[in-house]
Amino acid sequence: MAIIVQKFGGTSVGSIERIQNVANRVVEEAKNGNQVVVVVSAMGKTTDELAQLAKQISKQPSKREMDMLLSTGEQVSIALLAMALHEKGYKAISLTGWQAGITTEAIHGNARIINIDTARIRRHLEEEAIVIVAGFQGVTENGEITTLGRGGSDTTAVALAAALQAEKCDIYTDVTGVFTTDPRYVKTARKLQAISYDEMLELANLGAGVLHPRAVEFAKNYQVPLEVRSSMENERGTIVKEEVSMEQHLIVRGIAFEDQVTRVTVQGLASGLHTLPTIFTALANRGINVDIIIQSVTSAETTSVSFSIRTEDLKETLQVLQSLEGAKVEYESNLAKVSIVGSGMISNPGVAAQMFQILAERGIEIKMVSTSEIKISTVVEEANMVSAVEALHEAFQLDEEKVPIRS
Amino acid sequence: MAIIVQKFGGTSVGSIERIQNVANRVVEEAKNGNQVVVVVSAMGKTTDELAQLAKQISKQPSKREMDMLLSTGEQVSIALLAMALHEKGYKAISLTGWQAGITTEAIHGNARIINIDTARIRRHLEEEAIVIVAGFQGVTENGEITTLGRGGSDTTAVALAAALQAEKCDIYTDVTGVFTTDPRYVKTARKLQAISYDEMLELANLGAGVLHPRAVEFAKNYQVPLEVRSSMENERGTIVKEEVSMEQHLIVRGIAFEDQVTRVTVQGLASGLHTLPTIFTALANRGINVDIIIQSVTSAETTSVSFSIRTEDLKETLQVLQSLEGAKVEYESNLAKVSIVGSGMISNPGVAAQMFQILAERGIEIKMVSTSEIKISTVVEEANMVSAVEALHEAFQLDEEKVPIRS
Repeated sequence: MAIIVQKFGGTSVGSIERIQNVANRVVEEAKNGNQVVVVVSAMGKTTDELAQLAKQISKQPSKREMDMLLSTGEQVSIALLAMALHEKGYKAISLTGWQAGITTEAIHGNARIINIDTARIRRHLEEEAIVIVAGFQGVTENGEITTLGRGGSDTTAVALAAALQAEKCDIYTDVTGVFTTDPRYVKTARKLQAISYDEMLELANLGAGVLHPRAVEFAKNYQVPLEVRSSMENERGTIVKEEVSMEQHLIVRGIAFEDQVTRVTVQGLASGLHTLPTIFTALANRGINVDIIIQSVTSAETTSVSFSIRTEDLKETLQVLQSLEGAKVEYESNLAKVSIVGSGMISNPGVAAQMFQILAERGIEIKMVSTSEIKISTVVEEANMVSAVEALHEAFQLDEEKVPIRS
Repeated sequence: MAIIVQKFGGTSVGSIERIQNVANRVVEEAKNGNQVVVVVSAMGKTTDELAQLAKQISKQPSKREMDMLLSTGEQVSIALLAMALHEKGYKAISLTGWQAGITTEAIHGNARIINIDTARIRRHLEEEAIVIVAGFQGVTENGEITTLGRGGSDTTAVALAAALQAEKCDIYTDVTGVFTTDPRYVKTARKLQAISYDEMLELANLGAGVLHPRAVEFAKNYQVPLEVRSSMENERGTIVKEEVSMEQHLIVRGIAFEDQVTRVTVQGLASGLHTLPTIFTALANRGINVDIIIQSVTSAETTSVSFSIRTEDLKETLQVLQSLEGAKVEYESNLAKVSIVGSGMISNPGVAAQMFQILAERGIEIKMVSTSEIKISTVVEEANMVSAVEALHEAFQLDEEKVPIRS
């Protein structure tokens, strides 16, 4: 009998009606003769509301107490889902993180799972119960409640699937799958049948937002096949696995983009081993996420560096840079990042050149470039973002369904 | 260094502002140089709201899942109170029932505490932290979350005070103490300085409502001194302990009353050992609470019995009685129970006669009587309830503060 792990996000359990709908989904899988483990998030905006209560008391509440507070959200969802399954005549039992044997590091607010003792879950599955596990939470070896940080419920689901050697892990969400690009911006965006872990990782990091990168990494490490699909509609979603059949001529799998990017350039820095570490450590300490970094030595004595940040972090970034001696700081906001992702790039040289050519034909100036094996990112003016995505989507033929050349 | 246990009910932690107010109370006790353990209930109407969610899913939700659901209420309160104490510069840590080492029976919804392993609480106290424990909840030996039923947070507080050998246990509530009778009905009602466990038990059972009987029993068994006091006002409350100094001539300590009582009389029952057990087992199985029971044998062959119930249970009671062969059932609603309570009765015969006399002088007919060593209950017409209470309150001199004759 196969074990299937299903994960439902906050929107999918956002109301009593939706919880009942989730129960139907779970029952379908149970009727297929599978042992089902369900991971759920907190209902709708619950986590935000609880955080809001804490904020009324303290600007910087203790992370340990925040975990105590926030972990109640999932506990409510699991109990309600268990009740909904009972109403449908199914045996079901809810388990908190600690009851499910999920041990984490002792880092509150952003703990990583270090072990899952599946004995209790397996016992309940053998008793023919559907097991419902609270996502996003665990317990330290000392009995402290922890939460896993953003995307935590995805991670719980994937980690459970790995520990239970589940056949697959279905991530139910409010979209029907992973798209070639954001369908809200590009009408010809198309749902992918499949995508590799690495491609998904690049897309997740680039803000596609359907699956948390940490969960994808986990899935890749333990080779857990994922399916991203809609909790509202019945169609198949997108499979995420190690090796994805190549669609003919399809080099690029998807296009990610984000606005609100600012490029910062610092000139006149003293050359030396410690200059860059100093800057980027100072930024990291303030929690500022630096994305693309480009360094160019301008002379023997001085160096310059450009990097991109989220525009909301600009003010704090400038504060940090003020303290640098002799540095001349410039910045340009109203930029956007547009990236193409695809495993096919590895064996197809010249994709970068092709990308630059497509953008040039549209008269779009490239401000920064960054590449990885399966991704090329460019920074362009925000006003050009959508037109750049459309041009690339069309030129790389993402709007056309291709016949797979191998399965 | 003395350990003080403080308990704050749902109203006392009903808003962020009130939680901050509770934090002030806790800090006061800590400033006195005491080690403080705080037990809190769920915020305001949280428990009712959670139960309402469950009801939307199931008419009879699983008790195990109800415990999973409801126990989140207290978990929210403890985290927020810990944050509020941190803001005031105090070290504080919140603990759920299972973290606090509170083991209960495996009876969901109404579990009794069977053991408290205080090691973790003591460790935190030694580290000079204020320890905040979620009321109303515990864990079974198999790691299942349980709740303690009505008044559960009172019981948690008293049990912790017993296990920690605390100097006292302060029950903060929305009244300033225990009164001679309900001040909403009788203007001359007076707050008692002290009351014995037994008297409090009788008053609690009779609906005085400030302290749950189970908590009082627990306090009596372990000789934990309680103080019932207001979380809003600063005055002293009412001490509950084993032996209370007798106020001069004060035989009656308090008067309890409740309306919505119905008397049911069943005549023509076959005499025999099994008749009464059959009736009252059937009623108990339906969850109908029978209060006063009076039996009178009318002949060798048949017997009759009268008993009082809450009027809301009448319909179901009549259904149960319908099935009895040959029984003739009569009932009278719109009745009320009025009871006088006081340890002084034990050594003062004739208190019952005095009570009947006082009621007779006011023209109040007594429908039923029931007595214990320290309590006399009468059932009267509901219309006479308040006037009966006022007459007794005055006649037994409860409106006058008396000088204690021994301390």
